[in-house]
Amino acid sequence: MPLLDIVDLAATFVFAWSGAAQGVRRRLDLFGVLVVAWAAAVAGGIVRDLLIGAVPPAAIADGRYLAVATVAGLLGFAAAGWAGRFQTLVLLLDAAGLALFAVSGTQKALAAGLDPGMAAVLGTLTGVGGGVARDLLTLRVPVILRAELYAVAALAGAGVVALGHWWGVAPLLAQGVGAALCLGLRLGSIYGGWHLPRARR
Amino acid sequence: MPLLDIVDLAATFVFAWSGAAQGVRRRLDLFGVLVVAWAAAVAGGIVRDLLIGAVPPAAIADGRYLAVATVAGLLGFAAAGWAGRFQTLVLLLDAAGLALFAVSGTQKALAAGLDPGMAAVLGTLTGVGGGVARDLLTLRVPVILRAELYAVAALAGAGVVALGHWWGVAPLLAQGVGAALCLGLRLGSIYGGWHLPRARR
Amino acid sequence: MPLLDIVDLAATFVFAWSGAAQGVRRRLDLFGVLVVAWAAAVAGGIVRDLLIGAVPPAAIADGRYLAVATVAGLLGFAAAGWAGRFQTLVLLLDAAGLALFAVSGTQKALAAGLDPGMAAVLGTLTGVGGGVARDLLTLRVPVILRAELYAVAALAGAGVVALGHWWGVAPLLAQGVGAALCLGLRLGSIYGGWHLPRARR
Repeated sequence: MPLLDIVDLAATFVFAWSGAAQGVRRRLDLFGVLVVAWAAAVAGGIVRDLLIGAVPPAAIADGRYLAVATVAGLLGFAAAGWAGRFQTLVLLLDAAGLALFAVSGTQKALAAGLDPGMAAVLGTLTGVGGGVARDLLTLRVPVILRAELYAVAALAGAGVVALGHWWGVAPLLAQGVGAALCLGLRLGSIYGGWHLPRARR
Repeated sequence: MPLLDIVDLAATFVFAWSGAAQGVRRRLDLFGVLVVAWAAAVAGGIVRDLLIGAVPPAAIADGRYLAVATVAGLLGFAAAGWAGRFQTLVLLLDAAGLALFAVSGTQKALAAGLDPGMAAVLGTLTGVGGGVARDLLTLRVPVILRAELYAVAALAGAGVVALGHWWGVAPLLAQGVGAALCLGLRLGSIYGGWHLPRARR
Repeated sequence: MPLLDIVDLAATFVFAWSGAAQGVRRRLDLFGVLVVAWAAAVAGGIVRDLLIGAVPPAAIADGRYLAVATVAGLLGFAAAGWAGRFQTLVLLLDAAGLALFAVSGTQKALAAGLDPGMAAVLGTLTGVGGGVARDLLTLRVPVILRAELYAVAALAGAGVVALGHWWGVAPLLAQGVGAALCLGLRLGSIYGGWHLPRARR
């Protein structure tokens, strides 16, 4: 299995888990939890594939995505009793999912022939799309607007991959650095309180 | 007119009516009511057509969809005074719309050459998409998360059509059984209180 | 630069500013403000391009859209201190953006070979899409449902352009009349209290 698919499926897994956890918190039944898990897991990739004209999108055409998301959703449902203890883990996995989807989304857009700037925008959309779908479906203000350094972290990671492509760096190296940068920014935001300025009123 | 079109337009009609009723409850003006009616009526089909690459989507390319949705929206607006009495009827029609869209969406996806598993997923999306659009637009938690046996009923109906195709059953029979199963699950949920387990906290 | 692009970019600018202003009101940080500005600026055009099969959409493929939206978003962020004084201006610019996008969206759909009725529907979607994305992202009831004569104004403007095409009127004239009609209806609603009937309960 190509590395890109492994990265994509790993991101699908952790995003689905985050969706399931949010569904459990909203007291949804089993299928409602799965619906939120699916939406979180596949929304970003579907938007990316629609925008580059790759239909049907991989998340629907390739059964592994729904299968991985279903397993993660069931695990998240079954693990609901211990969810309190896993909260930090879930937050970390969510940051990992953002980083992985941002770089894999950028790489897929580059492979589809888009120029680096557009590819970085599409990678960012791939990374943040799942969280937006999950939060709108459960009527929360999307994490992209609540959390510090969220979309900007995805854009930084996607930008590294796009710049690496532009400069002829090996894709694997660029993806590693990009994912690490995105993850580092999120961890700095979560643990270090890093943030951008707010507008004065 | 092919049977599939009749099923699709009937579902469009009842979903538009459900959107109009929700718009009236939110005290929207005439055009706001029509906007919610259109969104409820065409969202599912547009998502399905985008995902299978059928652009422009039938709901826009074929004027009958907007015409049927407009008539249903105007009726829902005009009938607002008696809406209380029609509430049960609307709930039943909504369940019928879910069942009809789930089977017609699956059949259209199969006709576009998708494999049965993907077709069932797309049929489910077609069925539930209208309710999600209607509820997000009016800032309610989507019925797919509120109601019991909603998406699972659509998936069951879509699955019957997909399995019937796989086994070579006559499409008309598979669609009839699928729609009846979906409708039966919703009715059992509405009147019988059927539901799936919730996660323990 | 063709006139159609100027109109489109001007609409992008004013919609992005309206998104930035809403982000500032919600106390978002700099990047959150930009996210809402981008969503407001490009959502309508992306939906239109997806529905006519023009992928990747101009708002992503053509860097000028994101650049213009970013400048408008930064201006909206920087101008936050004086936002109170500019509120009327922003409301007027928003109405102008609706009018400009409605006519440019219709014209683009006609250029893509759609018939006049579908083109008017797509123009209306282009005009109202940005406001819906902006408001859903920040969890407000979409302006299309809150404001008087919003979608109906966009449809009137789009309809003039579509009818002009049907009758062979010069596009520039039809666009000018359409935009003026849409803007006039919005101004009449804002200043004159024009509105459509509501349903009796």
